[in-house]
Formats: sequence, structure tokens, C-alpha cells
Amino acid sequence: MEFVKQLVATSRKNKSLLCIGLDPEPAKLPVKDVLEFNKAIIDATADLVCAYKPNLAFYESMGIRGLGILKRTVTYIPDNIPVIGDAKRGDIGNTAVAYAKALFDYFNFDAVTVNPYLGYDSIEPFLTYTGKGVFVLCRTSNKSAADFQDLEDNFGMKFYQSVALRANEWNRDGNIGLVVGATYPEELKSIRKMCPDMLILIPGVGAQGGDLELSVKYGVDKNLEKAIIVAARQVLYASGGTDYARAARKMAAGIRDTINRVRGL
Amino acid sequence: MEFVKQLVATSRKNKSLLCIGLDPEPAKLPVKDVLEFNKAIIDATADLVCAYKPNLAFYESMGIRGLGILKRTVTYIPDNIPVIGDAKRGDIGNTAVAYAKALFDYFNFDAVTVNPYLGYDSIEPFLTYTGKGVFVLCRTSNKSAADFQDLEDNFGMKFYQSVALRANEWNRDGNIGLVVGATYPEELKSIRKMCPDMLILIPGVGAQGGDLELSVKYGVDKNLEKAIIVAARQVLYASGGTDYARAARKMAAGIRDTINRVRGL
Repeated sequence: MEFVKQLVATSRKNKSLLCIGLDPEPAKLPVKDVLEFNKAIIDATADLVCAYKPNLAFYESMGIRGLGILKRTVTYIPDNIPVIGDAKRGDIGNTAVAYAKALFDYFNFDAVTVNPYLGYDSIEPFLTYTGKGVFVLCRTSNKSAADFQDLEDNFGMKFYQSVALRANEWNRDGNIGLVVGATYPEELKSIRKMCPDMLILIPGVGAQGGDLELSVKYGVDKNLEKAIIVAARQVLYASGGTDYARAARKMAAGIRDTINRVRGL
Repeated sequence: MEFVKQLVATSRKNKSLLCIGLDPEPAKLPVKDVLEFNKAIIDATADLVCAYKPNLAFYESMGIRGLGILKRTVTYIPDNIPVIGDAKRGDIGNTAVAYAKALFDYFNFDAVTVNPYLGYDSIEPFLTYTGKGVFVLCRTSNKSAADFQDLEDNFGMKFYQSVALRANEWNRDGNIGLVVGATYPEELKSIRKMCPDMLILIPGVGAQGGDLELSVKYGVDKNLEKAIIVAARQVLYASGGTDYARAARKMAAGIRDTINRVRGL
């Protein structure tokens, strides 16, 4: 099914804007088998989320074995829940074609994240996959985000704002979204104002210290949707013990409920 | 050995600034076995290059099998020739740590390419690997490079120039380089002027239409070194037939000789 329709349907069914980041770090896991860990987290939270988002780095760091775990994790996620491959790829045309093939055809992600530094022709090959979602990095959640993203042009427009505007122009089919960190609520507010209808993927609550309530308040569209709030470490390592799945469920339910309270649901 | 020392030693021994991009596209190969193809290219060109540069996208597009081919390709390359993993990764701190682990510890690359969009803390985890090289994307070779890289700040400085200056500041250990496309010789000239001592990795000659002679003229430092000229498709598919290895050698030798003629060697 088309990513956006699937996202909206699951979000409404589960009454949730929460996306769990499936970013397992072997040293932090209470079990040895990473796939078992992922499956237990998915089993415990599938009715509480609108999407899952594995970041490829954590699987690549385990080598080829890790990529096998990633593929099996994507397959294990129930069909109605969209999976966002957080890969932040960005390369020239024919190379971007190869990355899109890897992410959409091989790993079968419903959406991906991409880096805008190389401009439109580096993103276009992802857009040619009808029905898939493409999230363009805009204002990232990390401390150094300001290094380049805040550079201001002659017209007083910041670099991340130029990216938001261009992505909005490219968004003819409604399948492009933006990535904006929860750690920068004022920037999120300004981006939502510039792009009232776009999906916004918002990482950075929890371990990174982003403000959950402001992220929801400033992130949602006029229908109180189209914001995807990501929590990863906070949920995955909620207990750190053998009751990790139960603890993850409790934490995920709490975040979902807080989001819904701010939405007035 | 340290990447920079290894690069300089091999470059001088082979009298070459040529780096071959090992970017196999199965549909274009004259043989079925991608690893066999890579090995034949390496055997035919190892005395003509200063480095090899596999781009991860082409291996990822083949799935897990492709990453096995990549790992075996890196292992097959003679120890004295540095291998640059062209991955263009960019992510927040703890995720960048995982990417660095994948690229340096698992795949054993001597250097990598990274994307600057997320700023310093996304690059720092790569820099903590002493002796490894880190090439920061600056002005890329594609047509849409200008979309964002040419945005100009209040002081008339373009975004890619800001990246060059910051990378130059970060380059305390001499292991940071820049990526500048051969398709933009004037930009290359200006970057070499701003960063007289940095390594510059220059893709875009051949299939992308970049000017080889200007790339050398504007890319080298005062000692006629520190430019790494990348050729991929032009070498890999020089004949397209079963004599691909011999044709690749001939093409690689021709490019190396042209580079050396421009250098006056």
C-alpha cells in the first residue's frame, strides 16, 4: 500500500503518532540475540505505534550478519505498519539509483530518509518509486546542526529553511516529508508554518533531551496529524533488564498517551 | 599504515594520482561474477593507481551478497594501496559512531567520505580513528550540486566554501580531505586556493564529463600532489567485452599519463 495512506490508517487505528526507532546497540541489550530483541519489542508495541524506524548504522556496525538481522526485522513487522529506513543517503544520480534499489527493492522499506546536500537530482531516484515516502533532512536534532544548517543567505533565509521550501516545491505527489529534531522546537514551529501540509518526522525526544509536548504542539498539522514522533533508546532500554519488552510497552504507551493528551484526544 | 602516508608512498611509487572507482553495475558487466570482475580490474591496474574507491551503493543494491563481495574486494586489494570507502554517511553522534565502526572496523577502509550537513559532531566519530582519512563532501560533481551548495551567505561566501573553511579548521591532524567534482573546475580552483594543503578527492572525469586536465591543474598542491583523480565507469567499462581487464589497464594508463603530463612529470 502507499506509504502515506498506510501511515495515516495505522496512526488512526492505533491512535498514535509514535514511531519507535529500532536501533539496537549490542552492548546495551539484555539478550544476546538482536533479532529476538527486535521481535520482542515489535510484539510488545505493534498496537501502540504509527511506524517503526530502523537506523541502518546500527545494523551495518554488526557487519553482514547485522544486515541479515535488519532484513528479517523488516519482514517481521506486521504488514499494516509502515517501516521507515533511516539511511540518510545522498549521492549523485546513478549512485542514488543504486541506493534507492537497495532500500526499496532489497530491504523493502516503505519510506526512507535522505540528505539534501547534493540537491534535487540526488533525491529524484527515490521519488520515482511511486507510493514510497521520502523524508528530507531539514533541521537535525544534534548539537552541531547549527554549524551549516543555520547559515543565512542574503535574504535572511537560513539554509534549513531553504531546504524546507525546496522540498515543499518538490512535493507534488504528497510523499515527501521533512526531518526536524525535537531538540529545536522554535525551528520546528517555523518549518510547520512554512510547510503546513508536509509530513514531519521528529526524532530527538528522550535520550537526546527534546521536548515531547512542544514537539507535538508545533509539529502537527491543522488536523493534529502528519507529525511522526520518534523514540528509540528511551523505549528500547526502558528497563535494561529481562523485562525489557514489558518496560518498552509501558514507556511507549506513556509517550503515546502524552502525545494524545497534547493533541486533545 | 596511516592513510595519508600510505597514499603518498603509493602515489610516488606508481607515479600516479589516479584512483579507480570500483563501482560495478551488474547489468553492465561482461562477466556474471562481480568479485571476479573486481579482482581482474585490480590485477590489471594495481601498479597504475594511488588508491581504489568502492562506492557502497553499488554493493548495497545487490543486497547482503553484494556486501560480501565488497568485503572480499577490500581484502583482495594489495596492502600498500589505500582503499577509500565512498559512503557519504552523515548522522548524529551515537549513530555516526556506529557508521564509523562499520566502515573502519568491519570493512577495514583506510579512508571514507562523509556528508557535512549535520555539522562537526557527525564527523568527529570518524576523526577519532587515528590514521584513517576522512573526505568531507564540499562541491559535488552532479548537476544539482548548485541547489544548496551555492547558497550565499551575508558575507558573499557560498555554502560549499564555508564547508571547505570549516573542514580546514578541523584538519589539525592532516587526515581530512575534501570532495570536489571535476565538473566544476572554477570552484575547484577557488577551493584549492582556500585550502592549499588539504587532500582533494576529485570524481567526475570521464562519464560525468569533467575536464581531466583542468582538474589536475587546479587540484594539485604546490608540490603537484594531494589531488586524487577518480575514474570509474570510463575504466571499468572501457571495452564492455571479455577483454575488459586489458582495456581497463590501457585506459587507466592513459589517464595516469595525461595527469602526469599536466604535472610536467
